[in-house]
Amino acid sequence: MSSLAPDLAAALTARFGDRFSQGEALRQQHGRGESYHAAAAPDAVVFAESTDDVSFIVRLCATHQVPVIAFGAGTSLEGHLSAVKGGVSIDLSAMNRILRVSPEDLDCTVEAGVTREALNSWLRDRGLFFPIDPGANATLGGMAATRASGTNAVRYGTMRENVLSLTVVLPSGQVIRVGGRARKSSAGYDLTRLFVGSEGTLGIITEVTLRLYGIPESTTAALCSFADTAQAIDTAVAVIQLGIPVARMEFMDRGLIEAVNRHAGLLLAVEDTLAFEFHGSPASTLEQIEQVAAIAAENGGRAFASATTSEERNRLWKARHNAFYAVVSQRPGARGWSSDVCVPVSALAECIRFTRELLATCPVPTAILGHVGDGNYHVVFAIDPDNTEELAAVAAINKKMVLKALSLGGTSTGEHGIGTGKIDYLRAEHGEAVDLMRVIKQAIDPLDIMNPGKILPA
Amino acid sequence: MSSLAPDLAAALTARFGDRFSQGEALRQQHGRGESYHAAAAPDAVVFAESTDDVSFIVRLCATHQVPVIAFGAGTSLEGHLSAVKGGVSIDLSAMNRILRVSPEDLDCTVEAGVTREALNSWLRDRGLFFPIDPGANATLGGMAATRASGTNAVRYGTMRENVLSLTVVLPSGQVIRVGGRARKSSAGYDLTRLFVGSEGTLGIITEVTLRLYGIPESTTAALCSFADTAQAIDTAVAVIQLGIPVARMEFMDRGLIEAVNRHAGLLLAVEDTLAFEFHGSPASTLEQIEQVAAIAAENGGRAFASATTSEERNRLWKARHNAFYAVVSQRPGARGWSSDVCVPVSALAECIRFTRELLATCPVPTAILGHVGDGNYHVVFAIDPDNTEELAAVAAINKKMVLKALSLGGTSTGEHGIGTGKIDYLRAEHGEAVDLMRVIKQAIDPLDIMNPGKILPA
Repeated sequence: MSSLAPDLAAALTARFGDRFSQGEALRQQHGRGESYHAAAAPDAVVFAESTDDVSFIVRLCATHQVPVIAFGAGTSLEGHLSAVKGGVSIDLSAMNRILRVSPEDLDCTVEAGVTREALNSWLRDRGLFFPIDPGANATLGGMAATRASGTNAVRYGTMRENVLSLTVVLPSGQVIRVGGRARKSSAGYDLTRLFVGSEGTLGIITEVTLRLYGIPESTTAALCSFADTAQAIDTAVAVIQLGIPVARMEFMDRGLIEAVNRHAGLLLAVEDTLAFEFHGSPASTLEQIEQVAAIAAENGGRAFASATTSEERNRLWKARHNAFYAVVSQRPGARGWSSDVCVPVSALAECIRFTRELLATCPVPTAILGHVGDGNYHVVFAIDPDNTEELAAVAAINKKMVLKALSLGGTSTGEHGIGTGKIDYLRAEHGEAVDLMRVIKQAIDPLDIMNPGKILPA
Repeated sequence: MSSLAPDLAAALTARFGDRFSQGEALRQQHGRGESYHAAAAPDAVVFAESTDDVSFIVRLCATHQVPVIAFGAGTSLEGHLSAVKGGVSIDLSAMNRILRVSPEDLDCTVEAGVTREALNSWLRDRGLFFPIDPGANATLGGMAATRASGTNAVRYGTMRENVLSLTVVLPSGQVIRVGGRARKSSAGYDLTRLFVGSEGTLGIITEVTLRLYGIPESTTAALCSFADTAQAIDTAVAVIQLGIPVARMEFMDRGLIEAVNRHAGLLLAVEDTLAFEFHGSPASTLEQIEQVAAIAAENGGRAFASATTSEERNRLWKARHNAFYAVVSQRPGARGWSSDVCVPVSALAECIRFTRELLATCPVPTAILGHVGDGNYHVVFAIDPDNTEELAAVAAINKKMVLKALSLGGTSTGEHGIGTGKIDYLRAEHGEAVDLMRVIKQAIDPLDIMNPGKILPA
């Protein structure tokens, strides 16, 4: 049951009318993401339509010392949306206006609730695209807040590299703009990068200015399967070390291929597979394909097949994007638990080998897939969220994998964020730097109303 | 005269012996960079040889509430080294060890006093290079602290994109490591980016982990001159908009070409000029040259000349790198004042046109040059630092140029930093976000001992 203070509820009702709700179903929906994490419903949901709306809500909640949690598309994977201390969920999905696109400058400004697919649909006719692609159709505000990346990061970087500027509502309700439209700047502290990845714990992002890219003259894709995981990973590492500018290089283990074949009606060879995409001029993509095919052949790759029609490519990447659902759908009633780690590429083969051994003991369906060009990979577990024994077994495997990644110089999360799911590993990864994160959090949000209980361990 | 507290001086002498000095000449040298800014000598200089040394000095200075200012190669351009409140200059130039290079992961860790040329000499035989190249042979710690970039940024990014991790001595003397070796991470606040560009005001960087790149298989260069500045800028903007991955694209105005010809004994055509460098496979650099030549021709470019021998290229880029000195040497006894702004590329032609008109009224030799692929350019003024009238005239021109850049959505400094020189423009650029920068500064450095008087206006 909602326990929002009646005068706060009254003030929100007065301004927002039926855009304010304490209804049970809506609250439950806003307290959970796509992953297994236990939901904790907020006390109320408000649908914001402007930065002013967000500022109004935050200011009011600050007065009442009530938590605020931003909600975009609800695709979080590490419990970011869980209202562990109650409070108000601010739904930004109606803030979905594309405010400005400058084809000459290859940048745009959008409201935080615009999804990446909506942006790319809008850009397509203008010959532009925004490459950051985490799979889910997340909002750009949410992607900024979790420092998302995805399949194209190996070539185009992550949200860290592609956000130029943000409009942010601070915990006081004050609205600031950080960063700017110049491609580079040495003017003062990099507040943009401070908010990118802060998961709503320092402020709420309401507008995002992004770098854009021209749609490449030529886009081609290729698939290569391997008898052996190590061969696939060695191929990926060699491609990176030789500096071949692949746009995508995705690893899918044979378990995943099986699930994807079933889920998407494909007939891919059931082997560990690398999927590539190449962007450039026709000549340069051809050159890249030839280089990668040669590396794959040297490493025992079989059946290197390139796909150049957009239909073939789309089917391939759609399968890749639906991997999470493909694995989960193997087990009726299951939910997905997707964990991710990222290591220096030289450690990737060892980390994946170690993970495979762990997974051999796992009681639930799993798959490994990843953006191996960055040293980043995911494990998806199809779990029964009510089975505490299963949950404990998966948690133990996840913990071993994360600690292994850290021991190899890696990170506990390459792109999903800390949320509540990785909070126990932050100190193992960052040591006393966590204390400095806390100094910053306390200085900016002294009342601890911004998405409390996330990132920083208690 | 040095006014260091005797007990502080005694404690530093006890630990550092003749690595501690209050000598006049050394103090003077450590209180100035390469630009015109009035020097303010620190009270003492200590030559640190380790992170422990730096931690010891900072801890001691914190106890005495005495400022500390990091010093690398002394190539600052905006007054970062000026000890406006006295204190201790910590010279890091002896911290020049390359601690680790991982060719497989394309990264390395160096002490903060390693210069970019020293690093690149060391890397060359290993087939690797570090691309960030601000011209001066700065230290990598200093480059991180000012968020430096330079000629290669259009392709490889700036220090913002290329620093993976830092070791930092905090104002308490505590040593932390921020970031990590994974190519990407969503684990917690991006402290790395907070320290990159913080100009020593939040902590002192003592070790830097950097991304490296394989030396391209093929490197070629080209020059193209234009009768008209607008044609040159239009060419540069078209190259960016078409996504041609040039490694360098530098604008040099005719005044600069004249100065460079004289200074370096070259015979370049005295016209506004674009200088390009292309990295890639032989086929791809050839393709890039052809594309750029076609764009230049469409925009009225004359005499497109490519240089493929490394000797020709080195002469060209040496001339470019010596541009600052070439302009200053036109006037015996002068010092250089180098200002930089950066704007969205669509505004570049207008901003440069406006600047040229301003410079027509300037009483001292000047030149425009810049990394125009990023929308970034510099104006160098050869000034008599004792002539207050001249200084006032140049300051007035500089102010008009900066305000114009800001009005076009640009930044007051693309790569030189704020220091003291751009401090009056920070609020015009960032508005109330400056207050948040101050909140962070006060939380991390409550005694204001870290390079006080820089970045944040009083």
